[in-house]
Parts: sequence; C-alpha cells; structure tokens
Amino acid sequence: MKDITDNNTDNNTDNNTDNNINNNKTFITFITGNRNKLEEVRSILKTNQENTHYSIKSLDIDLPEVQGEPEYVIQEKCKSASLQLNGPIIVEDTSLCFNALGGLPGPYIKWFMKKIGLDGLNKLLLGYEDKTIEAKCIFAYQENRDSQIHYFTGITKGTLVEPRGNMNFGWDPVFLPEGYNKTYGEMANETKNSISHRFKALQLLKEFLNIE
Amino acid sequence: MKDITDNNTDNNTDNNTDNNINNNKTFITFITGNRNKLEEVRSILKTNQENTHYSIKSLDIDLPEVQGEPEYVIQEKCKSASLQLNGPIIVEDTSLCFNALGGLPGPYIKWFMKKIGLDGLNKLLLGYEDKTIEAKCIFAYQENRDSQIHYFTGITKGTLVEPRGNMNFGWDPVFLPEGYNKTYGEMANETKNSISHRFKALQLLKEFLNIE
Repeated sequence: MKDITDNNTDNNTDNNTDNNINNNKTFITFITGNRNKLEEVRSILKTNQENTHYSIKSLDIDLPEVQGEPEYVIQEKCKSASLQLNGPIIVEDTSLCFNALGGLPGPYIKWFMKKIGLDGLNKLLLGYEDKTIEAKCIFAYQENRDSQIHYFTGITKGTLVEPRGNMNFGWDPVFLPEGYNKTYGEMANETKNSISHRFKALQLLKEFLNIE
Repeated sequence: MKDITDNNTDNNTDNNTDNNINNNKTFITFITGNRNKLEEVRSILKTNQENTHYSIKSLDIDLPEVQGEPEYVIQEKCKSASLQLNGPIIVEDTSLCFNALGGLPGPYIKWFMKKIGLDGLNKLLLGYEDKTIEAKCIFAYQENRDSQIHYFTGITKGTLVEPRGNMNFGWDPVFLPEGYNKTYGEMANETKNSISHRFKALQLLKEFLNIE
C-alpha cells in the first residue's frame, strides 16, 4: 500500500487517518493510484471546500480485476476493497465499449491499449461499419463492509476516430464525443471534464452524498 | 457446488470422496463444469485404467477469473480453488491468442465468442495481414494449499479462418492448425485430441505425475 499524495488527506484537514470522522468531517477513502483521478474526484465533490462534510483520502492498493460485465467488475473491486479496510470507500472502473463488438473491449480496454495502442483500436473496427462507442465510468460507494454497495454510472456516447490531440491520456485522442468536433484529446480539460463519463458518474455520487 | 458426473469419481473406484487416498489411489480433483473436459483429462491421464495410482474426480465450483496474462489468470484460479478445498487439485484455462493483437483476446476469448461470434472474430482481424493465432492451454496442479503450484502449458499454432466444420465446440471451426488443411471443427475427434493445445498440456502433466 502506498499513498499517492504528499499528504494523505485533503489539504484543509489534518493528517489523522486513524478514524473516519475528524473535525466533523467524514473521511472517504478513494482506492486509486492515479493522482489525476484523485484530484478530479476532490474537485467535483468539492471536498476541498470548508463547507463540505466530506474529505477524500486516497489509498493505492491492488484490487483484483475480474473478467465480466463492467457492473460485475466494479462490484468485485468494491467487495475486495471493503475486506481490506472497513470504512466509507469509493472505487472506480472505466470501460470503453465498442457497439459493433457488443460492448467489448469494455473493461479490458487497458489491455488492448497496452497491446495494440490507438491505431490498433481503429484497426479492430476496420471490418465494421458501426464506429460508435461508449465511455462508461462506474463509481461504487460503500459506507462499511456490511452495508449496501451503491453504484453511479456515467456514460458518454461517441465515435472512434483516428488519434487526434494530446496523446498523454489513454484513449482520449480516439474518443470523439457525440455533438462535438474535438476528441477528448483535443479538448481543454475544463470542457472534457464537464461532459466526460467520469464527471457524469461523479455528479450522481455527489447528489447521493447530498453535496451541493 | 455440483457434480457434473452421475458418479463423482472414476468408475473403477468406489464413491468415497471424504479422503484423497482410497484403495491405494490418490484422488485428484479437477475443477470443471465441463463433462467433455473431464473425460478428456481422464482419458489422457489414463485414470480409468487399473494400473494407475490416480483417480480424477470433478467439482463444479465458480472460480474467479481475473484479468491479466494467461499465466496470472490460471495462478489466481488455482489459489482460489485451493482455498476452497485442500487436496490435490487441477484447474485449467484456455486462451486464444491473435498474434496481430499482441496475444489478445487471449483469456478473454470466451467473452468475444459470446458477444461477436465466429464471424466477428474474423472481422476483428480484417485490418491486419497477420492471421496467425495460438491456442494456449494451461493446467495448474497443486498437491495442497501450502505446496507449490506447477504449471503445464500446451500451445498449438494455427491460423484464423472462416468457420468450417462442426459448429458445436466454441472456436474450433475457425482454428486451422499449422500443417493441416482441416480446422479443429472439421477434424475427427481423435485427430484433434492428438495435436491439440489441451492434449499437449496434459501430456506434460502426465509426465509430471509419472503416469506411463
């Protein structure tokens, strides 16, 4: 296990991680090793602000990623995380679903990215007319290991295109969101973050947590 | 958990499954829900014969299938099975690896079969010149939950072709083994079973178990 932030908690809280309530704030642990995702979650859930009841800390632990439908993958991730720490947690999983392939690569997209890259993704669909795809982000929230798991799914529809724009973030350059003429990779971060699959999922989580 | 055979043990042994040694035979539990695979394992390991020290029983339990390289997938399956029963076990996993896709779909082949079928597999490679593929079967054997896991890998090289032959067994109709002009689906069972990825892996397991 390792922290991915210099300070394991939000900057406006102290560093006491031994319990989940501190200064009237509830700590939620986001299981991630990705600092960008952590900042995005904090930003959208507004946990950096003083008037929120929540504070997000992060923990980078390996969670098993099972095979199956995205909903099953995230469920198993959450159950595994809850076995390792008993307190409010959020976990996240993202799929890139090609409609021509019945939703695949879906949760396996990271393996396809690694093995065949952006050009390879395009080649996969060469034999198919339908180039529509969906970016799907699911957050799971569980208050403690005995409580119900809540799921929050954000979907952004789009089309698979030749890579364009910033090549630094996974499949962003090949994802052209419906109604836009720029790929995720070409968009300003603020634009992308206002329409993205992850943003939509986090909006639902935010409503659930009663954050205004 | 359920048995997939009328009799949970080999026919030449009694039905005492409470221990792993009976009539001087060592029982090995093959975790599978597939009766054909069970019969193939028994046939190749010759456990139906009186002069063998082993007897294969089967157990149909759900094992988590994780994402990752085939070697990791089978390792996790074996570890999970060993947590559920402590005795000699074998588990198996099969991948179909497209060389143009860096080995994918690999362990995810069953999901691709389910979602896009045989024609879909061919369409996946339409953009690629290299149609060579490998069928890879890995058996894992573990004597008890504290002992080392042993792996036995059988690979049969081939080419992905349009579906031909018997359509009843997964991707058999699109697998044309190197050096043959019939797909697995067109071959007599005896021929296929003498060159197959599963046969090769089982031969290695057989040698390991000192079965002649």
